[in-house]
Amino acid sequence: MTSNTMLLAFDDERSLALELAEALNMPLHFIVRHRFPDGEMRLVLPTPLPETVLILRGLQQPNDKLVELMIAAPSARELGAKRLHLLSPYLAYMRQDMAFTPGEAVSQRHIARLLAGQFDHVLTIDPHLHRINSLDEVMPQGCGVTLSAARLLGGWVGARVPAALLIGPDEESAQWVSEAALAAGLEHAIGHKTRLGDHQVILALPEVAVGGRAVVLLDDMASTGRTLIGSAQQLLQRGASSVDVAVTHALFNSDALANLKAAGVRHVWSSNSVAHASNAVSVAGLLAEGWRKLK
Amino acid sequence: MTSNTMLLAFDDERSLALELAEALNMPLHFIVRHRFPDGEMRLVLPTPLPETVLILRGLQQPNDKLVELMIAAPSARELGAKRLHLLSPYLAYMRQDMAFTPGEAVSQRHIARLLAGQFDHVLTIDPHLHRINSLDEVMPQGCGVTLSAARLLGGWVGARVPAALLIGPDEESAQWVSEAALAAGLEHAIGHKTRLGDHQVILALPEVAVGGRAVVLLDDMASTGRTLIGSAQQLLQRGASSVDVAVTHALFNSDALANLKAAGVRHVWSSNSVAHASNAVSVAGLLAEGWRKLK
Repeated sequence: MTSNTMLLAFDDERSLALELAEALNMPLHFIVRHRFPDGEMRLVLPTPLPETVLILRGLQQPNDKLVELMIAAPSARELGAKRLHLLSPYLAYMRQDMAFTPGEAVSQRHIARLLAGQFDHVLTIDPHLHRINSLDEVMPQGCGVTLSAARLLGGWVGARVPAALLIGPDEESAQWVSEAALAAGLEHAIGHKTRLGDHQVILALPEVAVGGRAVVLLDDMASTGRTLIGSAQQLLQRGASSVDVAVTHALFNSDALANLKAAGVRHVWSSNSVAHASNAVSVAGLLAEGWRKLK
Repeated sequence: MTSNTMLLAFDDERSLALELAEALNMPLHFIVRHRFPDGEMRLVLPTPLPETVLILRGLQQPNDKLVELMIAAPSARELGAKRLHLLSPYLAYMRQDMAFTPGEAVSQRHIARLLAGQFDHVLTIDPHLHRINSLDEVMPQGCGVTLSAARLLGGWVGARVPAALLIGPDEESAQWVSEAALAAGLEHAIGHKTRLGDHQVILALPEVAVGGRAVVLLDDMASTGRTLIGSAQQLLQRGASSVDVAVTHALFNSDALANLKAAGVRHVWSSNSVAHASNAVSVAGLLAEGWRKLK
């Protein structure tokens, strides 16, 4: 127990917060929230705060949570925190990393700077960076720390689907999938994805033999699940003996799981970076390890 | 027409934006928004931008809008704006101006600083400051500019209810109501309000004779309308010949208007700082005048 550090969390991430506090061997307190009728939030932090404070906050459906952090962080400093770190299992606005049309806001840069302006470090997991290689390109050097759940998910899959063929949907997932495959000692292959809008995607699976194979589709995140559904259907048509899905961030909307099952997907596994019925692997140890390396 | 300035607005404030552009004699363009399924916003600004850019954004139900401003403002600077000003007819988080319990976040200060960090000036109307006298106490000197719709509403009331008695609900509204009364050449009196929670308020009306009088209840803002409803009922019981209501910020929730009417309130008038069915007075001229004084 280090008495000069504390973990703060929000009540809608209670389960991960408890695991993380144990992995960190650190006292845990919750930031109490109240929503007024006019949409404003009141936050109450524990007092007094030690010199080093970690805040756990995943940023799925991010806007309310971002505003809360913009209030909680300076409040924590007023209450005594001298070093303030954000542990954000899922970091928002990381996909909008260039102007696709003139005038389009590069939200990734602005949200990253907003967070970097309040926290000494921002630790996150698989932040879905496309055209930049590191958070150092959008935050002050060393402020952003990127962890990966690839090995955790690879290990989980390897223990449950021996001799599985891991398939990543696109080039962006290539490094992530190869890491997972390495951790599990499994084969892997990469497809090609063309995004036409929020909901429409053209998908080309890799030209590998899948007849009789147990295939596991891997990705860093999934929301509508359409890419995964299209892939699963193709793979089963081509003779795969089973198709499972494993993702870091289960951003699935309400009917995604049912649709995946209806398309023939056997298991859907995710890390608990985003709380969801499919959670199978905990990122608590990963975050704690990232924090210890930082110190 | 000044070619080196531009007014930017959002499409949900189109009506006020058009009036304001005319009052400012300034070209108007809209920031185009798209909401992704994961709750993130994509913003597209017009290009190129002139050196001076005004952004119109009222901050009722503030969190999404605050995040949009945190993206739009730095984007505008990247696109060429050298002076960037926020015209916010309704400014959020202004009521949380002290810690009522230990550890409570003083959101007013943090949100004010967040905006002051992005904009050269923040112009707003009747910002409901309780325990501070000026935005200068929470923003860099001169950054925050406070306008008042008291005279506009006073003038409106004076023209429609001759010999009205204006009543403000509490000491906080005293200056505001006396300004309105002065503008209209009307009598006024001030009550006393004790707030017990989000929804519960104890109200003491001023000890003035209201029998046979046309009373108009004035306030800077209203949300549930409960304070106004309680006041109207008391006044009618005490013999007032009519009770009308005039507020700057109509933050009314969905059934507030119907409840006011059911309580015997004749007219409900508001400024269009927040778009609402009760809007009667435009703040476009007020904002334009505030901007011209600033230059």
